[in-house]
Amino acid sequence: MTSQRLFDLILERRSYLCVGLDTDPALIPKHLLGEPDPIFAFNKAIIEATRDTCVAYKPNLAFYESQGAAGWESLRKTVELIRLSEHFIIADAKRGDIGNTAQQYARAFFDVLGVDAVTIAPYMGADSVTPFLGHPDKWAVLLVLTSNPGSADFQMLECEGELLHERVLRLAQTWPGAERLMYVIGATHPERFARVRALVPEAFFLVPGVGAQGGDLGALSRAGMNKQCGLLVNSSRGILYASSGTDFADAAGRAARELQAQMDVLLRECLGR
Amino acid sequence: MTSQRLFDLILERRSYLCVGLDTDPALIPKHLLGEPDPIFAFNKAIIEATRDTCVAYKPNLAFYESQGAAGWESLRKTVELIRLSEHFIIADAKRGDIGNTAQQYARAFFDVLGVDAVTIAPYMGADSVTPFLGHPDKWAVLLVLTSNPGSADFQMLECEGELLHERVLRLAQTWPGAERLMYVIGATHPERFARVRALVPEAFFLVPGVGAQGGDLGALSRAGMNKQCGLLVNSSRGILYASSGTDFADAAGRAARELQAQMDVLLRECLGR
Repeated sequence: MTSQRLFDLILERRSYLCVGLDTDPALIPKHLLGEPDPIFAFNKAIIEATRDTCVAYKPNLAFYESQGAAGWESLRKTVELIRLSEHFIIADAKRGDIGNTAQQYARAFFDVLGVDAVTIAPYMGADSVTPFLGHPDKWAVLLVLTSNPGSADFQMLECEGELLHERVLRLAQTWPGAERLMYVIGATHPERFARVRALVPEAFFLVPGVGAQGGDLGALSRAGMNKQCGLLVNSSRGILYASSGTDFADAAGRAARELQAQMDVLLRECLGR
Repeated sequence: MTSQRLFDLILERRSYLCVGLDTDPALIPKHLLGEPDPIFAFNKAIIEATRDTCVAYKPNLAFYESQGAAGWESLRKTVELIRLSEHFIIADAKRGDIGNTAQQYARAFFDVLGVDAVTIAPYMGADSVTPFLGHPDKWAVLLVLTSNPGSADFQMLECEGELLHERVLRLAQTWPGAERLMYVIGATHPERFARVRALVPEAFFLVPGVGAQGGDLGALSRAGMNKQCGLLVNSSRGILYASSGTDFADAAGRAARELQAQMDVLLRECLGR
């Protein structure tokens, strides 16, 4: 999907919401556990309840891989279902490996699984990221400033005159194919949004950490939005586990609509449209 | 496996070789492609040819995941086969994710797949690593200084008075469960071995980058060995693809025995035993 098409969807749906499919067998409603594929059954209900109010889905691969081969099948069916409507699909894989290994991953995610984007860790440098940047209309979403407490350990270190995450952001833009990069910027660092946006005026940011982790949607949107919106704000647990009962899908739909209503107002406020 | 048991195996087999199972369907001998599971058939022949000359195997997960559900099955069978003899098994996954996601991965690798260790990326900080450190006799192998050209991009940055990879190494040792950490130190940085060994006198290093990438086994062994050996030196392509013909397993066995013979001499030279 092109960034222009993504922006069109944002305007159509009045939403820059990404629903994180962190589907945990230990947290899904008990009545689903009798289904032949409980993870897929849960995802299907969540997707049907939220697809009109979001522009992206982000399955977190850990939750599928931890189920072995069956988990990959749940993931494959989930992606296939999402593709019946029009959404940007991000495989939250946080990969980072070199050369031919990275090529294998790029093929697995873009060609076999059929997603639009993959999250990538930067620690190993250019040759662990650039293999993901050669696929037309496919994206690598680089971890820059994450939303977890551990983000302070290395990402906020002062390195040769700038913070490590700023260095990652600046250097990444010099890599061949950098126009196919998006960046993870956690909502738990509102004071950093204006600065990182100044460093990368055009790119999309994937923003985890609103809801359960406490990020402020209004503040980050005002500081981070660009003229193509440039934000995909993720919510996982706040939507998926809004209720643990048989009404989980209704509750998920309501939680997503609440975020969407706030986004509608913020799009008008920040973009005037 | 305990580090003491690993050291015992090193002395018994006169080897600190780790065979990297980067099994690429595009590179395995053509005559195997008719097998029901060509990847497993290849791995089986490689394992049978090398198991007496190595102490560890390291399947690189990218090569299995890129084959979807079938790849996971090849991996599962490979790990099961390796466990019939006694080897340290490292899932080269380069994961790095937070809290409950990391927990899912730890469970997938240690409990479901049954490996001894998983490689982990440090960029997200403590809470992306510590979930791997609570499993008795299981290990997290932290990426510190990798062997690829991109390792220069961030790992060698000067950060608040030390290089980033040194900071990673020092901080990691303060994390709860740090006694279950090993560290990736690439063979392509021979000038760094004495320094990183001084920072972590006791731990095992997993060392990629000899062979195809040009690292010098003698130099890194002399600078990096500690009194428990403390090194697992990995070779992947140099063993796996020593021949592309029907004699590939014999050629792999020969390549592994050559490294083992050098290691035998180096163990005697550095440890006196």
